[in-house]
Amino acid sequence: MKSAKMSQPVTEQKKWVYSFGREVCEGDSSKKNLLGGKGANLAEMSNIGLPVPPGFVMSTEVCTYFYQNGSAYPGDIEAQVAAGLKQLEKETGMVFGDAAHPLLLSVRSGARVSMPGMMDTILNIGLNDDTVKGLAASGDERFAYDCYRRLIQMYSDVVLGVDHDDFEDILDTHKRRNHLRQDTEITAAGLKEIVELFKAVVQKETGKPFPQSASEQLWGAVGAVFKSWMTPRAVTYRRINSIPEEWGTAVCVQAVVFGNMGDDCGTGVAFTRNPSTGSGEFYGEYLINAQGEDVVAGIRTPQPLDDMKTAMPEVYQQLNDIRLQLEKHYKDMQDIEFTIQNKKLYMLQTRSGKRTAAAALKIAVDMVDEGLITKEQAIKRIQPEALDQLLHPTIDAKAAKTVLTKGLPASPGAATGKVVFDADVAEARAKDGDKVILCRTETSPEDIHGMHAAQGILTSRGGMTSHAAVVARGMGKPCVSGAGDVVIDNKARSMTIKGHVLKENDIVTIDGSTGEVLLGEVKMLQPALTGDFETLMKWADATRRLKIRTNAETVLDAETARKFGAEGIGLCRTEHMFFDPTRILHVRQMILAETSEDRKAALAHIEPHQRQDFINLFKIMKGLPVTIRLLDPPLHEFLPHEDAEINGLAKSLSVTVDKVHQRITRLHETNPMLGLRGSRLGIVYPEIYEMQVRAIFEAALAVKKETGETVTPEIMVPLIATKAEMDILKAMIDKVAESTGFTGYLTGTMIELPRAALAAGSIAESAEFFSFGTNDLTQTTFGISRDDAGSFLPAYQSAGILPNDPFASIDVDGVGELVKTAAERGRKTRAGLKLGICGEHGGDPASIRFFEAIGLDYVSCSPYRVPIARLAAAQAALKE
Amino acid sequence: MKSAKMSQPVTEQKKWVYSFGREVCEGDSSKKNLLGGKGANLAEMSNIGLPVPPGFVMSTEVCTYFYQNGSAYPGDIEAQVAAGLKQLEKETGMVFGDAAHPLLLSVRSGARVSMPGMMDTILNIGLNDDTVKGLAASGDERFAYDCYRRLIQMYSDVVLGVDHDDFEDILDTHKRRNHLRQDTEITAAGLKEIVELFKAVVQKETGKPFPQSASEQLWGAVGAVFKSWMTPRAVTYRRINSIPEEWGTAVCVQAVVFGNMGDDCGTGVAFTRNPSTGSGEFYGEYLINAQGEDVVAGIRTPQPLDDMKTAMPEVYQQLNDIRLQLEKHYKDMQDIEFTIQNKKLYMLQTRSGKRTAAAALKIAVDMVDEGLITKEQAIKRIQPEALDQLLHPTIDAKAAKTVLTKGLPASPGAATGKVVFDADVAEARAKDGDKVILCRTETSPEDIHGMHAAQGILTSRGGMTSHAAVVARGMGKPCVSGAGDVVIDNKARSMTIKGHVLKENDIVTIDGSTGEVLLGEVKMLQPALTGDFETLMKWADATRRLKIRTNAETVLDAETARKFGAEGIGLCRTEHMFFDPTRILHVRQMILAETSEDRKAALAHIEPHQRQDFINLFKIMKGLPVTIRLLDPPLHEFLPHEDAEINGLAKSLSVTVDKVHQRITRLHETNPMLGLRGSRLGIVYPEIYEMQVRAIFEAALAVKKETGETVTPEIMVPLIATKAEMDILKAMIDKVAESTGFTGYLTGTMIELPRAALAAGSIAESAEFFSFGTNDLTQTTFGISRDDAGSFLPAYQSAGILPNDPFASIDVDGVGELVKTAAERGRKTRAGLKLGICGEHGGDPASIRFFEAIGLDYVSCSPYRVPIARLAAAQAALKE
Repeated sequence: MKSAKMSQPVTEQKKWVYSFGREVCEGDSSKKNLLGGKGANLAEMSNIGLPVPPGFVMSTEVCTYFYQNGSAYPGDIEAQVAAGLKQLEKETGMVFGDAAHPLLLSVRSGARVSMPGMMDTILNIGLNDDTVKGLAASGDERFAYDCYRRLIQMYSDVVLGVDHDDFEDILDTHKRRNHLRQDTEITAAGLKEIVELFKAVVQKETGKPFPQSASEQLWGAVGAVFKSWMTPRAVTYRRINSIPEEWGTAVCVQAVVFGNMGDDCGTGVAFTRNPSTGSGEFYGEYLINAQGEDVVAGIRTPQPLDDMKTAMPEVYQQLNDIRLQLEKHYKDMQDIEFTIQNKKLYMLQTRSGKRTAAAALKIAVDMVDEGLITKEQAIKRIQPEALDQLLHPTIDAKAAKTVLTKGLPASPGAATGKVVFDADVAEARAKDGDKVILCRTETSPEDIHGMHAAQGILTSRGGMTSHAAVVARGMGKPCVSGAGDVVIDNKARSMTIKGHVLKENDIVTIDGSTGEVLLGEVKMLQPALTGDFETLMKWADATRRLKIRTNAETVLDAETARKFGAEGIGLCRTEHMFFDPTRILHVRQMILAETSEDRKAALAHIEPHQRQDFINLFKIMKGLPVTIRLLDPPLHEFLPHEDAEINGLAKSLSVTVDKVHQRITRLHETNPMLGLRGSRLGIVYPEIYEMQVRAIFEAALAVKKETGETVTPEIMVPLIATKAEMDILKAMIDKVAESTGFTGYLTGTMIELPRAALAAGSIAESAEFFSFGTNDLTQTTFGISRDDAGSFLPAYQSAGILPNDPFASIDVDGVGELVKTAAERGRKTRAGLKLGICGEHGGDPASIRFFEAIGLDYVSCSPYRVPIARLAAAQAALKE
Repeated sequence: MKSAKMSQPVTEQKKWVYSFGREVCEGDSSKKNLLGGKGANLAEMSNIGLPVPPGFVMSTEVCTYFYQNGSAYPGDIEAQVAAGLKQLEKETGMVFGDAAHPLLLSVRSGARVSMPGMMDTILNIGLNDDTVKGLAASGDERFAYDCYRRLIQMYSDVVLGVDHDDFEDILDTHKRRNHLRQDTEITAAGLKEIVELFKAVVQKETGKPFPQSASEQLWGAVGAVFKSWMTPRAVTYRRINSIPEEWGTAVCVQAVVFGNMGDDCGTGVAFTRNPSTGSGEFYGEYLINAQGEDVVAGIRTPQPLDDMKTAMPEVYQQLNDIRLQLEKHYKDMQDIEFTIQNKKLYMLQTRSGKRTAAAALKIAVDMVDEGLITKEQAIKRIQPEALDQLLHPTIDAKAAKTVLTKGLPASPGAATGKVVFDADVAEARAKDGDKVILCRTETSPEDIHGMHAAQGILTSRGGMTSHAAVVARGMGKPCVSGAGDVVIDNKARSMTIKGHVLKENDIVTIDGSTGEVLLGEVKMLQPALTGDFETLMKWADATRRLKIRTNAETVLDAETARKFGAEGIGLCRTEHMFFDPTRILHVRQMILAETSEDRKAALAHIEPHQRQDFINLFKIMKGLPVTIRLLDPPLHEFLPHEDAEINGLAKSLSVTVDKVHQRITRLHETNPMLGLRGSRLGIVYPEIYEMQVRAIFEAALAVKKETGETVTPEIMVPLIATKAEMDILKAMIDKVAESTGFTGYLTGTMIELPRAALAAGSIAESAEFFSFGTNDLTQTTFGISRDDAGSFLPAYQSAGILPNDPFASIDVDGVGELVKTAAERGRKTRAGLKLGICGEHGGDPASIRFFEAIGLDYVSCSPYRVPIARLAAAQAALKE
């Protein structure tokens, strides 16, 4: 009580301290906000009759009071703690600070959620020069002094701020002088010496002796817990994870039990089911004659829990019963900690256990079968993001690895291959049977064939929604983007990563789920989909309201997406079809044309290919809706950059190289993202869209004729800012439809500019559907280019300026307001307006929750995100 | 009546036709919406007793009815027209279609505003093979048949759609055969022949004879007027000028009077004051023995009106009396048309006269002195934009000129000089006393010294708010930007404009008010400010609510703006101060630094200069508010591009050229507009802003010490998107203030991202003022880069997709909604939040109207726009 100011006593009696134990138990698991996760679960276990060492919890309200009152405690807390202690002494038959029967306490922090930066545990509070003798009398002397020196070491470090190394030096010196290798070999006499040396350090460093008062020790530890709530690390963590400061932390004070009093003692951790596979066996490990921290420290290798069956059969039986009781009670797989003191079992913690995606899936489905949980609960249990693990190869968590650097986890999964720096080389090598990783500063649509051929893609620039990231996700290939430490020298055919030089054909491994770039080959686990996956997906489909479509323009993507359950195509980016080697020459011819006639002539060569593209997609989608976006990127994206290619182009077009250069220069844009693209192309060069629209309608007619299936194409005009643009292009589309005799299509637009979102009411007069292009909408709303964001977005996230990458998860307050506004205004004009979203956010669970809440009709995402979106949509529907 | 369908008679009697004349006059000038401008003014002149040939108006409601009812007329219109005709016949004593005393009519369109594409006039309706003889009897035969052939020619062209050339051919053939040079030499007999040939053409081309029924002629002409309302040209004009289709046009039907019946006849046009200078003399010209169209056709040279004093003194006296009466009546300078038939004067039109800016100013001020109008009316009379003419040299409208091409009118005024292609060359030539025009593909901040040295700037790329345009307007120098036809070859030191090759030192003239690029030197008028200007400005200042500040960072700009009446600086762009030759090396050193320490060392060299910059500005502004924007552009803008410069930089920094290249490559951005700039720089490299803020505070302290004047700097953080950014930077600014001991400043932000506008409520918790950066806000809201907009924005404007360049005049519906929302949300959080605007829109009158309406506190614009803004703000206040 000495270290903190006392405030005036309050008149109204408020409960600050909650006891738990066999006789008195004032909490339960519903009181997590008040008692913290740890305290609430200890109380809950006491309530259901499990053997928990008794204790009490100082509630989170004490923490809040503490910070609202200049680090002062409530006036009546001392009395309440004293009462809690008295109950503890009654139940244990020991007395806190008593020389003969000393009660020892542990003090731990316990917030609602576990949080890095918070104080962990101080054990053995209550030991001093007198009580240590009482402890020695009840056990053995070596044990007692080992406990005492641990207390001094831990307490001085955490509460008194004495440098940990001072104590380690003393221990090391002692061992060296006595030729000992391990702490465990130090004798009782040695430990007594060490305790004296430790105390001298405390006296020297703090100017005061190590506190001999048990009460002073207790309040010192409690204060340390509360202070740890405001450590910079905890504050940052809270800011990033949007945890309010007012939540506060609780403090758990508990009688210490000892797993290190002999060979009939021990301590261990276990999971109630296998956390890797989800199968039903009891899974854990323990150490004979050890304290909890020894298991964590890894000095000795723990034994598998199975060994306990023979070593301590009764204890094992009791533990297994508790395991089954906990699962039945909590209806979830538990992660437990226990200690055995002289063959008596004590439960020290239970909490929901972390698990792999496969395990989560199996456990959820099994628990439904076992009648423990409902299907809805099963759906809620699975983190949608975790499904990625099931769809892609992953790095074996146990494998040794050398991390060269870390970029952005742009497309999940892991891949190993030979380094190549050029798309053509990648393709050639892959044809020879090599596995390659394509390493580029950034990729462009010209690299598509190389990306297809590669196992994975590594870029030194670009964010989560850069070209490389988007295309790789579409292909389901691993990608690490924006790895700023990677410096590629294309001429030398090598790259340098923090001093490591990698030449062409050197082996690297990339982990697109973490962003890590690893040296050489690393062991991987291959994905395998089980029946549990199908079962859960079926439940999700029955629950969700949102439709799930896919972003696809290739046959492979479309088929993959169908396999994963996509209910149509939400975004077919026709520009990806322009890069095919059989067309790119004509595309370039079209771009270089000076007249509408020349453009039309070039487009005539492309049209049959486009028509066939659409025929293929329509057939795969068998009558499901297909949204086709007309040409979107600026034309200069299609022009070659290398001299050789430019020369070749000039030759094939029979124009001078100068002329090609001139045209490229004229097409250059300072900010291509905000340039001549999208519907602007359609208005300036109408013949391009006319060709595309004709190809769509003729493809639909051809498929109808061949298969009898009615196709309802949804033609999407990109980058609309005003109703007038939409009017002009809709009239053009209707005119082409008339000329082909096709009917039964929808014309709509992407809402991807703030202006369009605001003008949605008038645009909806012409547009029959909206698809929110939240990638571009995020770029323009924030004024952030996703290609260039790498220079500051990571710093913004770690400083907590942005809770998430707004390109990965929608910025609800800003971009979200525009989406909501547009949806409302659009539907006010046209009641049945179809609303979807086709940006990267379509596959992000948090964003899907938002889209469900504002009532969109569907989300569209890359093929490999479709299962994630199905599950997330179901969860979102359940939240409603 | 035969050419249009008749609808069913309506039961309720509605007035469609309004007579005007001496006896019956059913309209006046308040009925412009119903009668059109022409009809309303004819009625008004009749009302006040002026000699107007009588007539009637078919109202604009007839037009609306016509188009709402499938080109049908109201059922009762025939009767109303007949009644109108009867009244006309009564007043003139002539009869429509009568062989002996034929009444002839003119038919004209008359919308609320005059509009290109509308039918002009058909004269002499009522003439046919019979009535022509009656007309010949009352006058002379040649005159009568000339009138008839004019009717056939005009009517067939406009109403029957017969090719005009068919008639011209006949006239030409006749003259050639008879060796005549001019139409006036054709005899009566010749004209009779020609009339027969004309009638034959009509029969051949239309399959029907030329209509001999006077009534059929009349209804044919009326129908032609209504149909001309929907010509493509009229439709486009209305779309671009936001004129609703429902306005419709009226039709004026009026008795024809003849100025071509002999030497006691004539016709003329006049202004009631001099439209060039505004001085009080009667100003006009007339032709003896001529019809209105002869004056326009320019075949004969008209005489000055003064000649009439002696030629027809009574008529002149009468006309002069009418002139004075009209000015008194309309309280504005009038543009009138008149005809004299046998010494009798008839008024055919009066309307508000077009005038130069100087004239407008003089007339407005004089009319206040004369007691004709109030000061408020005077303020409303002047187009603010027109003041530009008074502040800059202008091309003499009478000068001969060869237009090479037309770009954007980016900065007003005209300039002549020798072509140069390089800023350094421009500076060197100017030092030698040469006048030069700097011609660049686009300019960058590196060109500033060359722009200063040049008379004017011409660029082939970039819009109205490109770097060249903004800087030129700030300097008050003429600039033509985005002249796409100009192809500059820097190596060859020449440029090609549509085939014309101009070498260095060739002379060009640019007109920044029209966008024209002219060959060689062209005669110019120099600006001169009169006392009228000061008078009007004083009245405006007393009327307006909005404060007017200026965008300025140089001593010259700041002093110019003060001279023009600026009430402070609304935007000081500190980056412009970084390009000074004495600092740029250190700026580059700072950018290339790898550590915070190296950056600080480089910044230490820049700091004294920055401090001095601010001292200068504070002194000029003498306690007026000065808003200083911290560094905004991406750092790569400061790096050199040319090899020589890069080599020099490497040498001066003692690093390798490779290293400089590497750094430049790393700093490259795909979309710099959306990259690492603004507050993002301040967060990633805090030492830059710290230096700037310290320089500001120390400058304020120094000025206070020296002059005793209290300076209240307003520190503006650019490109904020979230409150968190503002919090971090405000804390930094406050910390620097504390370290310098300075107090009494404001910290605010530019609202220039849609996200910031939406989050204005939370941002205002930290920000003490907002300044709307509507340039960037327009770029992001529309997704249009102003640097790249040249490739489609002109097409968008001419197609009517955008009524205005949204960078020149604020897009009220989109960008405006964001500004309004931000203003409301910001003020809800912080009641006294100071709100201003510092984008280009700050000097645009239409935008200023909007800013007044939503209650901003001030607008800030370039120095030469300050007078325009003062006047526009006064007009906006009067509109409230």
